[in-house]
Amino acid sequence: MPRYALKVEYHGAPFAGWQRQRDQPSVQGAIEAALARLEPGAHTIAAAGRTDAGVHALAQVAHCDLARDWTPFRLMEALNHHLKPAPVAIVDCAVVDGDWNARFSARERRYLFRLLARRAPATHQAGLVWQVRHSLDVERMRAGAAHLVGHHDFTTFRSSICQAASPVKTLDAIEIATVETGWGPEIAFRLRARSFLHNQVRSIVGTLERVGSGAWEPARVREALEARDRAACGPVCPPEGLYLAGVDYGRDPFA
Amino acid sequence: MPRYALKVEYHGAPFAGWQRQRDQPSVQGAIEAALARLEPGAHTIAAAGRTDAGVHALAQVAHCDLARDWTPFRLMEALNHHLKPAPVAIVDCAVVDGDWNARFSARERRYLFRLLARRAPATHQAGLVWQVRHSLDVERMRAGAAHLVGHHDFTTFRSSICQAASPVKTLDAIEIATVETGWGPEIAFRLRARSFLHNQVRSIVGTLERVGSGAWEPARVREALEARDRAACGPVCPPEGLYLAGVDYGRDPFA
Repeated sequence: MPRYALKVEYHGAPFAGWQRQRDQPSVQGAIEAALARLEPGAHTIAAAGRTDAGVHALAQVAHCDLARDWTPFRLMEALNHHLKPAPVAIVDCAVVDGDWNARFSARERRYLFRLLARRAPATHQAGLVWQVRHSLDVERMRAGAAHLVGHHDFTTFRSSICQAASPVKTLDAIEIATVETGWGPEIAFRLRARSFLHNQVRSIVGTLERVGSGAWEPARVREALEARDRAACGPVCPPEGLYLAGVDYGRDPFA
Repeated sequence: MPRYALKVEYHGAPFAGWQRQRDQPSVQGAIEAALARLEPGAHTIAAAGRTDAGVHALAQVAHCDLARDWTPFRLMEALNHHLKPAPVAIVDCAVVDGDWNARFSARERRYLFRLLARRAPATHQAGLVWQVRHSLDVERMRAGAAHLVGHHDFTTFRSSICQAASPVKTLDAIEIATVETGWGPEIAFRLRARSFLHNQVRSIVGTLERVGSGAWEPARVREALEARDRAACGPVCPPEGLYLAGVDYGRDPFA
């Protein structure tokens, strides 16, 4: 039974998240339904990141097992055909070993958070960015973010319903850059870690926004981290700016 | 009666174009209706580019005359309030002289055309790019585009219903660049000219796409131009990748 790795792009808005749910649309459910059109029966796929409701992906990675041998190109074409009109696209596909696992073989996840800082409402980018209506100081946010990089207890920055066994994680990097877009000051946050806690990226970006606006001193981020107390976190920002941007496996299965 | 310059961003999809029409939604009509909420009565605004149905703008420029003195910030805020929920945003505003005219004072218009070249369907960028499902050779397209830059009779590249007095125009530049987006090979065409003919950008990009795909030799673009025959043009591409990206007035009214 050959195993296939799938690189998946999706718009998060119509979905209750990645994970299959009985009564709500999910990305996993959409892809499993497309697989069932190719090979009848139940399919269960696994993914590197179980993104929340409304969160987007540029390069989620999942794997599936099929009875037939498919060339990756034909499988990708067939899945994209059956996925229409859902805003989910298989953008790459590869045959992988039977013990390769999209979730457990992953060494690093990369997230992008897009923030639009301007007063005028977003038009083209509505639903694709988090908009705040004031300006933000990127240097202050970088100073605040520096306290979070490294090996820490991230209790402050995880959801109270997070199911991870431990709140201790290593955040490899937070890069904050202004992006020339033509549609106003867009700020891109790029975070990398082996794995993330539930709501960790949105908790961090929401906190850094408070620093960028001037409401928080950068040092308060360190105090919040050291408090190991969910109540010390800044406001959790909404999902529409968040993208699962990539997954690293050491050896790229799509290369 | 003070005059105001407005910089306008919009998503073209819900509109029959910039120009006010009796029975269809237009960007001009939306802004004039918002102005009427501020100062009752009929308003007529003029713009630098009368974009077609479905065409977007990053920085359209218009002007309006109002009875009251508004600070530019308050006017922008009030218009954006009344424009909701239409995907039209006033992103800048300035007081200008009474003889300044958004259309006739303009020295150069800049258009951006975004093309996504990949097989998998667009998700986040659906409606914001023109998608073709094959790869394109950017160097070939640049070679084809070079034949069009300069002072030419663009009869081949204008709509048969174009109302311009003359088909002779000077195209200042066509720049073609690949853009790192994270969502597949996006190609940005940037065109600059004092003014454009009806459907000129879409006729040019549609023709260059034929060159990039390998269907046309680059030299055929010169032959098409020299034919001065609409029938010699490549296919006109759809509006959803086209953006009015900026207008130059010599002295920037918003500076």
